[in-house]
Amino acid sequence: MSLASIQIKMIKRLLDTATDDKIAHALDKIHPSELSFLFSELNENQTRRLIDSLTLLAKAGQTLRELPDFLLPDVLEQISDKKFSDILLRMEPDDSLFLLQKTPEGRWPILLEALPELQRSRIEKLLIYPNNSAGSVMTSNYITVRSEMTAQEAVEHLRSHPEIKGAFYIYVVDDTNHLVGVQSLRQLVMAPLGTRIKDIMDRDARAVLATDDQEKVAQIVGQYNLLAIPVTNEQRELVGVITVDDVIDIVKEEATEDIYHLAGLSEADRAMTPVATKVKKRLPWMILNLITASLAATVVGFFLQSIEKFVALAVFLPIVAGVGGNGGMQSLTVITRSIALGELDFVKVHRAVLREIGNGMIVGAICGALMGLIGFLWKGNFYLGLILFLAMVCNVIMGALAGALFPIFFKFLKRDPAIGTSVLVTFFTDTFGFLSFLGLATFFLQYLG
Amino acid sequence: MSLASIQIKMIKRLLDTATDDKIAHALDKIHPSELSFLFSELNENQTRRLIDSLTLLAKAGQTLRELPDFLLPDVLEQISDKKFSDILLRMEPDDSLFLLQKTPEGRWPILLEALPELQRSRIEKLLIYPNNSAGSVMTSNYITVRSEMTAQEAVEHLRSHPEIKGAFYIYVVDDTNHLVGVQSLRQLVMAPLGTRIKDIMDRDARAVLATDDQEKVAQIVGQYNLLAIPVTNEQRELVGVITVDDVIDIVKEEATEDIYHLAGLSEADRAMTPVATKVKKRLPWMILNLITASLAATVVGFFLQSIEKFVALAVFLPIVAGVGGNGGMQSLTVITRSIALGELDFVKVHRAVLREIGNGMIVGAICGALMGLIGFLWKGNFYLGLILFLAMVCNVIMGALAGALFPIFFKFLKRDPAIGTSVLVTFFTDTFGFLSFLGLATFFLQYLG
Repeated sequence: MSLASIQIKMIKRLLDTATDDKIAHALDKIHPSELSFLFSELNENQTRRLIDSLTLLAKAGQTLRELPDFLLPDVLEQISDKKFSDILLRMEPDDSLFLLQKTPEGRWPILLEALPELQRSRIEKLLIYPNNSAGSVMTSNYITVRSEMTAQEAVEHLRSHPEIKGAFYIYVVDDTNHLVGVQSLRQLVMAPLGTRIKDIMDRDARAVLATDDQEKVAQIVGQYNLLAIPVTNEQRELVGVITVDDVIDIVKEEATEDIYHLAGLSEADRAMTPVATKVKKRLPWMILNLITASLAATVVGFFLQSIEKFVALAVFLPIVAGVGGNGGMQSLTVITRSIALGELDFVKVHRAVLREIGNGMIVGAICGALMGLIGFLWKGNFYLGLILFLAMVCNVIMGALAGALFPIFFKFLKRDPAIGTSVLVTFFTDTFGFLSFLGLATFFLQYLG
Repeated sequence: MSLASIQIKMIKRLLDTATDDKIAHALDKIHPSELSFLFSELNENQTRRLIDSLTLLAKAGQTLRELPDFLLPDVLEQISDKKFSDILLRMEPDDSLFLLQKTPEGRWPILLEALPELQRSRIEKLLIYPNNSAGSVMTSNYITVRSEMTAQEAVEHLRSHPEIKGAFYIYVVDDTNHLVGVQSLRQLVMAPLGTRIKDIMDRDARAVLATDDQEKVAQIVGQYNLLAIPVTNEQRELVGVITVDDVIDIVKEEATEDIYHLAGLSEADRAMTPVATKVKKRLPWMILNLITASLAATVVGFFLQSIEKFVALAVFLPIVAGVGGNGGMQSLTVITRSIALGELDFVKVHRAVLREIGNGMIVGAICGALMGLIGFLWKGNFYLGLILFLAMVCNVIMGALAGALFPIFFKFLKRDPAIGTSVLVTFFTDTFGFLSFLGLATFFLQYLG
């Protein structure tokens, strides 16, 4: 939900004329995620005043955190080092790191030096985790208790930490910070006051390692319907927590990756990515596509004599190849998505492949019949119709086969089933489409024309 | 996480030989989502025994709920009406409805009649909401309180409902069940015991209408980082709650839709969908693709004389069209995904289009140069190289233009920007690719060959 245009107009006028206090008052009731929509509408001066007012309200950090990736670097550039440090001062280490990563590394020392020692070291600790790992998305915004505490003591402990707002689970650790259990706030409230935490906590609570991939985290949180999951190191020491709102972001990101990989795109390539980055990311795939298309086209080169004798073949070439490629992309998409959603874990894989082939046979036969009819009617030549029918059936089946098998084979090799498979499928259906159609045409050449 | 194969073997042996009690004991510690992986491994007799044991453990319903859509109908068919009703008896109305919808409607009256009046009517009430609406995914598994209650009374009330496990928010309603506020369990625990709920509850809590689309629900829950959202009717009477675990499922479903639409697929088409359904869903798109490919190919028909004179043109035709189409699909994917994620709400749309065109110009020029070089080297003809260069540049730019503009135009018309746009983009790049390449070749024909 974004702000109404009348609200935006009003805020812009305030930013141009009113005092910081007055602006802050107007912005007080607006949610950070709604405020974030403002930035794309503002000039440099208005942006500065907005940041100033948000800093007064202590929600500058949250608001910046809600900005889309492509806007953030520009906005951060307009914030002075002093103001930026003030904002970081009130933010969680993981959110601070997120903002830092959107600024040039040269600026980090100045910003970090202005922070208190403890806060700085907590941010620096997060830097060791690789991108997209559990460690890189976890928060340190959680509450721990000891297993010997009573329910009442745990509740008291919760009360003494009003700043940890989303604490719907509390984490039970021993003297050396090893995770020994998880206690849901709901069960805590249910328990008689004198109950010991160790008697009600969940000892089998699932945890992930800080080095685990975020995709695995999302999968576990989704499968077990959790609201948060604790993150530990190899020694099972609690190092952080990942909450379900971050998991939603991860699920969206992973879906974007899947969609993008099928189209030969990199995750970093969004609508507002600078042209230079777009070119750098897309060019390799385009050139690969150019090469595979050229290789497939060499097949056409072998049959130039046939085309010379019956030039109408050139008209049908791209249709046979294209329809086969289209069918192949359908199979590829279904199988790739099934792998991503874990659906193929429930069945024998060959059954899914057989269904794709079955579909390819029927759809191929119908499209082939249609194509054959068009060819026959256009040129009044039965053999042209027959050739088109046969080539189309074969190529659509080949497409189904390639679309189903390549991602499964890639998965078997422990590679991403979406990366590169669409290029392979198209290469396959192009080559096989040209070969089957022109091969058949050459065989029946004396009956054509 | 699925079960290890040794566990599966052990459970299968138990199902064949042990008593229900013994089986139930072995299954007790296993999470429903892990149990669900068993079904694809079992024969009919084993399935029946598994269901019997799970019914003893009261987790038959949950386990069935975790099965993928394509397995559920077969498993439900093997459960007797009596047993099925017993399972429904312990399930929430929304989960019951979910299972019912996977069985033939003819079976519904028998199953529903066996349920108590109240439970039956609660399920029937859900039937009025359209598929994919908030009403169709909400749960009635929530706790309400009155705003005059004290914090202590509210906690007592929570304690008297141990069966509502995930109650991390409670909902504040008036005498006539109108939603007046939401109270987080975390804030409730923080409040002094005598505080009235009306003084601490969130009065501005976001709610959705039962008729709202589930996509909107997912968007709001994601934007405001909620764990649950109340659902009301038009009169603001509370009718249900949607929890964040369902939102994760919705996000995945919507992503699948986006991926599928770009490939001309229907959401109902999964790896294990029966062939007949696959054919029914895919054939229309394949035929549409056949028609547009044929229409594009008629352009080739206009230039048969040129091809007859210089037959090598047939080799390059599919390359120029294919590479342009590939670039177009990249732009289409980026813009479609940006629309789905709401990123384009932050910027002026024309800036995103300009960046796609900018990328198309540079990538087109590089691919064109490469293509031109290949053509020149192969035939030693400068003009062939020039024609290929020009046609490739034009077609890649056209692809970028079509890929960026069609989804934006569709969005403007309030249509899904992913449905049908890929067919349009390919039609565009095929037609324009043939036209530019063969047009230029005809113009320079005297210099070729």
